[in-house]
Amino acid sequence: MKVLVKTDILGRNENAAAENAALFARRGIYALNLLGSPGAGKTTLLERTLTALSGELRMAVVEGDLFTVKDAARIERCGAPVVQINTSGGCHLDASMVAAALAQLDLTALDLIVIENVGNLVCPAEFALGEDAKAVVLSIAEGDDKPLKYPLIFKESAVAVLNKCDLLPHTDFDMAAARRDIEALHPGIAVLPVSSRTEEGLAAWYAWLRAAAAKKRDVR
Amino acid sequence: MKVLVKTDILGRNENAAAENAALFARRGIYALNLLGSPGAGKTTLLERTLTALSGELRMAVVEGDLFTVKDAARIERCGAPVVQINTSGGCHLDASMVAAALAQLDLTALDLIVIENVGNLVCPAEFALGEDAKAVVLSIAEGDDKPLKYPLIFKESAVAVLNKCDLLPHTDFDMAAARRDIEALHPGIAVLPVSSRTEEGLAAWYAWLRAAAAKKRDVR
Repeated sequence: MKVLVKTDILGRNENAAAENAALFARRGIYALNLLGSPGAGKTTLLERTLTALSGELRMAVVEGDLFTVKDAARIERCGAPVVQINTSGGCHLDASMVAAALAQLDLTALDLIVIENVGNLVCPAEFALGEDAKAVVLSIAEGDDKPLKYPLIFKESAVAVLNKCDLLPHTDFDMAAARRDIEALHPGIAVLPVSSRTEEGLAAWYAWLRAAAAKKRDVR
Repeated sequence: MKVLVKTDILGRNENAAAENAALFARRGIYALNLLGSPGAGKTTLLERTLTALSGELRMAVVEGDLFTVKDAARIERCGAPVVQINTSGGCHLDASMVAAALAQLDLTALDLIVIENVGNLVCPAEFALGEDAKAVVLSIAEGDDKPLKYPLIFKESAVAVLNKCDLLPHTDFDMAAARRDIEALHPGIAVLPVSSRTEEGLAAWYAWLRAAAAKKRDVR
């Protein structure tokens, strides 16, 4: 019974996700579903990205959060169009929530939409939003055992950003072990150690985004 | 429709939780539901606790995890009885999973059972397990904005352990703001800044647990 209900919810979500994907394809917009635990640093990474790439990519953000508009306010200060989705306690975004948010954005002149999901390393990985790719942000303060403990999100993501690398000297995080585990879960995934605080490593992240958006634009 | 299904699932969970609570009451065992994000430091806090209090409290652990037995292996090395629950990707423990785990423990000579929930700051707060209290562990590396962003878990918890305080000098975490927000969400909650790494502040956590277990024993 429980399984049937879950299958039904996921089935309806897949349909809505396909409609979002078709909309992104028509517009030539690259859509990224940004995932990670609470406090992994998703919003700070986005702030850096919007500032650094504002001259070359036209970007908008959809912000998922349980109740607050704190993150949307931070994004707005970067000058990017942003729509807040509040899930009222719900643990993930679904494709119909994103569809409603997209209706509030001007999609005629965009290269990249980043959808920041609810802070949660489990549930959001199960719900497609129509995105071109998922990106998972893991704070190195969370520990190097997390990829094997939360494998689905790493299997689903095209890129893993290992954030807060400025804290490496103050933790026991084993970067080689983390990289090995992530690449074993998902051969071909891009593993990018960065610090949004010191900006170390961010150039590789920007290059990844730039290439992804350019590829989508060329298809258009 | 979705709401009815959810109500039904929660209703059945409440019944199983009441049975667990009755079992804990009969045995005079204090049961703690330990919650927090991935990498908040729940397991390390437990390792410290089992070692420090082994001479005075008889303790057992129920370990929740999606797939691995990594945490249970760590607990076993501390010499405490432990039962692993794997949720096969499920984002929280429910009361019937805990009931099945309790059936594998010798409950005749225990003062304290700690149930370490799946790493998730959202879903586990909605599912009672029959526990006497919930304790939330927040790593200061997650940021001081998290209590207001994930309010339910702080409203539900009797104690908030602010872990990894050894990282305070390397972050922007505002301890006064975090404490103010947590106490506004839940007046009377115990807020305990600690570092499992340096053992700073752990004495207050041990005292909280000792008092809680003693109160339950006296009722028996």
